Amino acid sequence: SVNPDLASERQTASFSVEKLMAWLDGGVEHTRMRRAVVEAIERDPVFSRENQYFQSQNERYEAAVRKAVHLQKKMREMGWTENGPEYKYIYRALAGDVAFLLHRIFMRSISMLGSDQQVSKWIPLATQYQIIGSYAQTELGHGTYLQGLETTAVFDTTTQEFILNTPKVSAMKWWPGDMGRSATHTVAFAQLYVQGKCYGVHPFIVQLRSLWDHSLCPGITAGDIGPKMSFEHADNGFLMLQNVRVPRENMLSRFCEVQPDGTYVRWGSQKINYFTMTNVRISLLSDEVIVPVMKACTIAIRYSVVRRQSKLKPGEEEAKILDYQTQQEKLLPQLATTYAFHFITDYLQELFDRAYEEIQRKNFDTLPELHAFSSGFKAFVTQHCTSAVEICLRACGGHGYSLLSGLPSLYTKILASCIYEGENTILLLQTARFLIKCFMAASAGQPVPPSVTYLAAMKSRKCPAKNKLDFLNPDIYTEAYQHMAARLVSSTAAKLQDLIQSGVKKHDAWNQCTVQLAQAAKAHCHYITVKNFVETVEKLKTQAGIQKIMKHLCDLFALHGIFSNAGAFLYDGYLSGAQMDMVTASYLDLLPVIRKDAVPLVDAFDFSDKSLNSALGSYDGQVYQRLYEWAQKSPTNTQMSPAYERYLKPLLHNKLSKL
Amino acid sequence: SVNPDLASERQTASFSVEKLMAWLDGGVEHTRMRRAVVEAIERDPVFSRENQYFQSQNERYEAAVRKAVHLQKKMREMGWTENGPEYKYIYRALAGDVAFLLHRIFMRSISMLGSDQQVSKWIPLATQYQIIGSYAQTELGHGTYLQGLETTAVFDTTTQEFILNTPKVSAMKWWPGDMGRSATHTVAFAQLYVQGKCYGVHPFIVQLRSLWDHSLCPGITAGDIGPKMSFEHADNGFLMLQNVRVPRENMLSRFCEVQPDGTYVRWGSQKINYFTMTNVRISLLSDEVIVPVMKACTIAIRYSVVRRQSKLKPGEEEAKILDYQTQQEKLLPQLATTYAFHFITDYLQELFDRAYEEIQRKNFDTLPELHAFSSGFKAFVTQHCTSAVEICLRACGGHGYSLLSGLPSLYTKILASCIYEGENTILLLQTARFLIKCFMAASAGQPVPPSVTYLAAMKSRKCPAKNKLDFLNPDIYTEAYQHMAARLVSSTAAKLQDLIQSGVKKHDAWNQCTVQLAQAAKAHCHYITVKNFVETVEKLKTQAGIQKIMKHLCDLFALHGIFSNAGAFLYDGYLSGAQMDMVTASYLDLLPVIRKDAVPLVDAFDFSDKSLNSALGSYDGQVYQRLYEWAQKSPTNTQMSPAYERYLKPLLHNKLSKL
Repeated sequence: SVNPDLASERQTASFSVEKLMAWLDGGVEHTRMRRAVVEAIERDPVFSRENQYFQSQNERYEAAVRKAVHLQKKMREMGWTENGPEYKYIYRALAGDVAFLLHRIFMRSISMLGSDQQVSKWIPLATQYQIIGSYAQTELGHGTYLQGLETTAVFDTTTQEFILNTPKVSAMKWWPGDMGRSATHTVAFAQLYVQGKCYGVHPFIVQLRSLWDHSLCPGITAGDIGPKMSFEHADNGFLMLQNVRVPRENMLSRFCEVQPDGTYVRWGSQKINYFTMTNVRISLLSDEVIVPVMKACTIAIRYSVVRRQSKLKPGEEEAKILDYQTQQEKLLPQLATTYAFHFITDYLQELFDRAYEEIQRKNFDTLPELHAFSSGFKAFVTQHCTSAVEICLRACGGHGYSLLSGLPSLYTKILASCIYEGENTILLLQTARFLIKCFMAASAGQPVPPSVTYLAAMKSRKCPAKNKLDFLNPDIYTEAYQHMAARLVSSTAAKLQDLIQSGVKKHDAWNQCTVQLAQAAKAHCHYITVKNFVETVEKLKTQAGIQKIMKHLCDLFALHGIFSNAGAFLYDGYLSGAQMDMVTASYLDLLPVIRKDAVPLVDAFDFSDKSLNSALGSYDGQVYQRLYEWAQKSPTNTQMSPAYERYLKPLLHNKLSKL
Repeated sequence: SVNPDLASERQTASFSVEKLMAWLDGGVEHTRMRRAVVEAIERDPVFSRENQYFQSQNERYEAAVRKAVHLQKKMREMGWTENGPEYKYIYRALAGDVAFLLHRIFMRSISMLGSDQQVSKWIPLATQYQIIGSYAQTELGHGTYLQGLETTAVFDTTTQEFILNTPKVSAMKWWPGDMGRSATHTVAFAQLYVQGKCYGVHPFIVQLRSLWDHSLCPGITAGDIGPKMSFEHADNGFLMLQNVRVPRENMLSRFCEVQPDGTYVRWGSQKINYFTMTNVRISLLSDEVIVPVMKACTIAIRYSVVRRQSKLKPGEEEAKILDYQTQQEKLLPQLATTYAFHFITDYLQELFDRAYEEIQRKNFDTLPELHAFSSGFKAFVTQHCTSAVEICLRACGGHGYSLLSGLPSLYTKILASCIYEGENTILLLQTARFLIKCFMAASAGQPVPPSVTYLAAMKSRKCPAKNKLDFLNPDIYTEAYQHMAARLVSSTAAKLQDLIQSGVKKHDAWNQCTVQLAQAAKAHCHYITVKNFVETVEKLKTQAGIQKIMKHLCDLFALHGIFSNAGAFLYDGYLSGAQMDMVTASYLDLLPVIRKDAVPLVDAFDFSDKSLNSALGSYDGQVYQRLYEWAQKSPTNTQMSPAYERYLKPLLHNKLSKL
């Protein structure tokens, strides 16, 4: 039975949850397919996550391998393929904890960087899991800065082999997934040396473990890097190479090759690599970032209408905590942010698809813009979503801190997204470099991509809003964001220029502006996100009920951003103090309006209870009962501890059993 | 041997680390005593935390009990007592993971709330560990709002007993430490009923487990609440009571009593309870909050001079990451914050000690101020420190995410401090209530405590600073903070008044202002922290070298706060945009200055390597070597996984061992 406090929230929805769901899925037929995949996965006991919160790192690794192997079978059974329409729902249904994700990256890198012969040799083996691959790029001493990698591959003309070495501890490969305990092969990145000359970092296929008995191959030292904040199931590994010889054919050679006599030849364009990173960053946003934050909102908002605490009015019953302004102000902006980012990832995907068409026509012009967008949004979205999940966790008080709430594991996992696939600060600075360049070009009258023409076209210097309702006008707030972003870019460009003109060297000047450059990049992403949200709402015209609530969320997202970054809007007087009061008033007024639809808005994300795996967030709201039931299954209750016999009995044991 | 990149940082310190350390400890003799305690604890293998990151919840519980029992012996051996001067260093040296902290709260509550007979019966038993106590207040359904507790205690005149019950699932006691598996007794809070009348929440001593064989007593259901984000060593428990009878003498009766005929008598003042909470909140700040943030800064800053990545200048070697402005801007404000909060806890302790003297003279006048301070600062400090630890973790990139860095466990532990001992938002609103009250009183010409007289005495309306150097003048920035805090309090008071005058009911009006009230409370705490930092630096006059660097940190703390909350200072034109540029310039200029002394500034916190338990943060900076050594000890490397035999072998096993 559904908790009545939660049930009542669903009876007053201002829109149809099913319709919103279908719209979010991109059509009711997608909703149907998604649900069919979820059901097939959840019906299968091998994929159960029931005891996940009680498992050790070893147990989770084992379960992840079991699931990955079973998944192959399941896919054949169900007729699902890697290129089929169901595929994107599988990972969401599994909710992580599946091994061999790096095996897929191994395959992708061979497909893209390997010659036709290499592809036809390795891909069939990998597809059938006759080998398991990994992707060994990051080292103990080097992550984002790839040129600094220290692993070496020296070409030996006499044997036609590359000799791979880990010359020092910091050169050890560190972090690659699937490598610690599983992989038989890896693509290892190393500095290529031919006849004493260094040609930079190149990829080599290296065998790590015997296919006969899985023992480590000669010259290989490998293992697991130990416990991390999350990803317990993944065997992130280390790898040391001592005079490991691989044949000349094992250097991936779609774009370059070492010929038998040692001649180094390079052909084709490597820009396509650039493009792959872009693709990875965009797809990680929807899979690894938006999904967790949707789940966190679902859990925290459902819990906040079941939890009653203290009284809003003397003499009444205790209030649902979501009826407190402070709780609304914690959670509802996160909900709006989730929708905003869901829409921006769609936008990025479209941008990517369009660029891909161009690239197939050998037109690489859109690449710099695409790279700047994917870098900046990766940083902007992961940072906001990580903070959103943390807010959701803290808003659930003590119970949010229990692993059984599901929130801690969402948090520790999403936090990693700020670090992997490019460190966020470095990514923001790449976006900033693009913005500065475009600003300079546009100021000099040169053409720039449409998304950044605004930089050189600052409109009004004052916001025209006269009362708080004006701030519910998307033109008003979109323009405020545009102004703010353009101002931050132009003023940082000016500071950079001033420093250089005053004699500071270019790289020093750049370093002295990086704090502000990162701010400017964020402001740009914020502006684009607001603008895209507004456009998404406008397109919804035919679905009035949904459009109305989406408009409220869009307003809330925009005004929350102004409220929390007030300084950036007040700084040059674009907004006055009185206007900031109007923003605050409109912002706070929106909270009780959206609060009424909060539960339907998270119901529309349509996560099953198994997928949420949360004692606080289930559809029926039986929070306390479930916490109690789950706790009883914990090994702290099911396994006897020797602590009593060993340490307590000598102290406590007493003829008088009761005092 | 010390990593040369770290060693060189120590040769250029602008002050004596030993002198700073002695000053922070409150005298060189304290440093000596602290080190002696640390050495004695760390020399003892029972207290080792060496494998902590690899242990299960059960193993950590067992180790915590072992340590707690051993600690008693150790203290006798060493001649340390609970009231001795060494005592405060013991817990720091143990670095958590010791059982029976709630046993101490059990004893404290009996000492304070129990009658003399109760004290003389229970305290000796507890002191000798013949019983183990817990403190059962929080329930599944109620935390901070104590009046809402649902456990009942009904007085039965015929048997002279209280009958305790858990009437529904949400009334189950949930979270109490030491209760899940260890405690034989607890102080349980329940609604007292006598002859059908409810007298509110009272404390009762209840036996949970047999002293003979540790089995649960009749009517008791108890166990462990399962895994949490941290505190794996603590057996946080649940407790259900079914007609559990305790004698009349088991209600703690220093302040009230149920007499044999059922007459309820109350005497004395309960204000002292109020005072205890205050004390707990202040002491938790130094023990549980400042220490972790000091450790996080130590780890992140040492790592940031060992880690080299990318190039600042073309052609040069890779730069230490602490030489990048963005890395400085992440870490150095956290370092300044750590110092600021170290000083503010000293200030709060003094305030508390002065109040305690007054209370002993039966003067309770300072209690409201003390309560407001301890509530507000608990929230303000825990929130900033939690965010500081997260920043440190993320600033270490991938390696910060490894448990071996020590940062994840510092983060997950400090995060709890935002939730326990009063939820932060509720605490801020208590402070806000005090501030509004004082503002109204002061505006009406009534006397208010000296710490809040500023509220009614707003000075200049414009900041007088003319150039960026003016912002290194403590008067300038302290006044800016004062102005901002006073404005937020007065404008929220005005909004509250307006709402009430326009007919909104008082409690609704309050709820509609809570977002702004919480901001006002934070602003007040921020102002007091800045002011106290300035005063602390002024008092340092005799120690010029230390004073200079402390002045820099004070400036950085203050300017960082203005830079990050620009809106609050720009809003009413107190600062102009041009002045904000000066703040930004001065703020960014300070970073490279303090960066030079960053390592000595964290060395002065004087944590041993064992205490840090971090592969990244050790004194010698042998980061990569240690990560590799520690990882090899992980159970993921020392235990064979059945995954290969079960799942991988059938796929991979191949006559051709090598491809």
